[in-house]
Amino acid sequence: MTETALIALIRRLAGRNRLATGRLDLGIGDDCAVWSPAPGRQVLVTTDQLIEGIHYIRRGTTGRQAGARLLGRGLSDIAAMGGDPRLVFLNLALPQADGWTTAFLRGFAAEARRFGVAWAGGDVSTVRGPAVASVTVLGEVPRGQALTRSGARPGDRIFVTGRLGAMPARITPRLGVGRALRNVATACIDLSDGLSTDLHHLCKESGVGAVIRAEAIPCAGTLDQALNRGEDYELLFTGARAPSRIAGVLATEIGVITKGHRVWLDGKPLRPSGWEHSF
Amino acid sequence: MTETALIALIRRLAGRNRLATGRLDLGIGDDCAVWSPAPGRQVLVTTDQLIEGIHYIRRGTTGRQAGARLLGRGLSDIAAMGGDPRLVFLNLALPQADGWTTAFLRGFAAEARRFGVAWAGGDVSTVRGPAVASVTVLGEVPRGQALTRSGARPGDRIFVTGRLGAMPARITPRLGVGRALRNVATACIDLSDGLSTDLHHLCKESGVGAVIRAEAIPCAGTLDQALNRGEDYELLFTGARAPSRIAGVLATEIGVITKGHRVWLDGKPLRPSGWEHSF
Repeated sequence: MTETALIALIRRLAGRNRLATGRLDLGIGDDCAVWSPAPGRQVLVTTDQLIEGIHYIRRGTTGRQAGARLLGRGLSDIAAMGGDPRLVFLNLALPQADGWTTAFLRGFAAEARRFGVAWAGGDVSTVRGPAVASVTVLGEVPRGQALTRSGARPGDRIFVTGRLGAMPARITPRLGVGRALRNVATACIDLSDGLSTDLHHLCKESGVGAVIRAEAIPCAGTLDQALNRGEDYELLFTGARAPSRIAGVLATEIGVITKGHRVWLDGKPLRPSGWEHSF
Repeated sequence: MTETALIALIRRLAGRNRLATGRLDLGIGDDCAVWSPAPGRQVLVTTDQLIEGIHYIRRGTTGRQAGARLLGRGLSDIAAMGGDPRLVFLNLALPQADGWTTAFLRGFAAEARRFGVAWAGGDVSTVRGPAVASVTVLGEVPRGQALTRSGARPGDRIFVTGRLGAMPARITPRLGVGRALRNVATACIDLSDGLSTDLHHLCKESGVGAVIRAEAIPCAGTLDQALNRGEDYELLFTGARAPSRIAGVLATEIGVITKGHRVWLDGKPLRPSGWEHSF
């Protein structure tokens, strides 16, 4: 399959998506996409990449799963900010365009349709090595309501959604939860790198510490998996209180924010043992 | 150099950039960047990638040159829409983080500062193969004033900026020209793939044909280089007329837009012979 045929397929798959709010004035086919966010919104931007041999793109997963997964990771970042996803851009560096590749693109396009996201541009090139897929997701959030990592204060309770450590093949980005938390949570982050690492990220950006209890953590498998495995794509958030279900998703209190900058698990220091790559 | 050290370097290099209009509310360090474009603007988005062994990233160019070049390509797309660049995001897949890499990042950061663009996020990962650098540039344009590829009409004159075929080591994105063309040009595209290919792109999106004259083309080297070499990053635009200099840059009339869909050079069909990869 030539690059030209691949681009023709992408144009067909991308189609034309009407956005829930705002307008995509110009999508695939020009030097830039042109987008009018809805009035009174701030723009959210997140980028992410999947690399063959490092992340499980290609081996151990179907093309459709990997395509959906790449977009799901970006959507999870939008959810963590309390935002609504709107546009996505995909850059692909591929050793060859085969059946796996077309399945990947179909999985990516189906996930975009499922979440009302317009596929608005990108680039495909050949690489003499492992495949690299890079994605940018743009979203919007009502002005002043974005959830950040930096708002946690001593005394805030710490919550997580769902069950941790399962490493699901299919990511369910917690967009409904994020929206519901807009005026509720003081801080929020998505669990992509593992609870131990992401709790440190949140504490560092907020300038606080934390104490969590192992027995309170909703584990899908072992405690170590829940703490360090990563790839949960649940939300970790702080606030005065939270209902036990938010937008239909389990929410569990696992500890409390403290002064200082240390993170403790059952009275012992908790080390960040997950991934670290974003900046 | 570890990924953590690389991320620390990137955070230092990115710094904090004040934007000419609008505001970066939240940059590097959270799940998403948060941006407030200026009122009355549309958002522009373009993505691009450089691949070791395919494009001349690493071999044949210094790190600083390649870093500046990657950003310059994105800025050129913003210029082609008549926009102002505002934010940039960089994803890097690297075999190792060496001196070339840090020079690349310094070149990238210096180019961002030079054009008032805030480096607002990204991702670095290891790859067991050629390096891949993927960039997303966001810009803004006054509502309704974006230049597109689709506005050319029969009778419009065809113009190019600068001299073609030189393949300069340093890209000078024609941002001032793009701004000056906002209410002047009927269509515009940047010359990244070569005049022969990009003129076809513009004609296809506008549903028109074109006739150009070889003797009118401002060549830096041979005619073939000017037509097919690509990587010029000058602007090709159409309109009723243009001054011979725009924002200090040479502008040359090379032909006229016609009915139909064919492109002619001196009475012979002109084939698109450059690159083709964006969608």
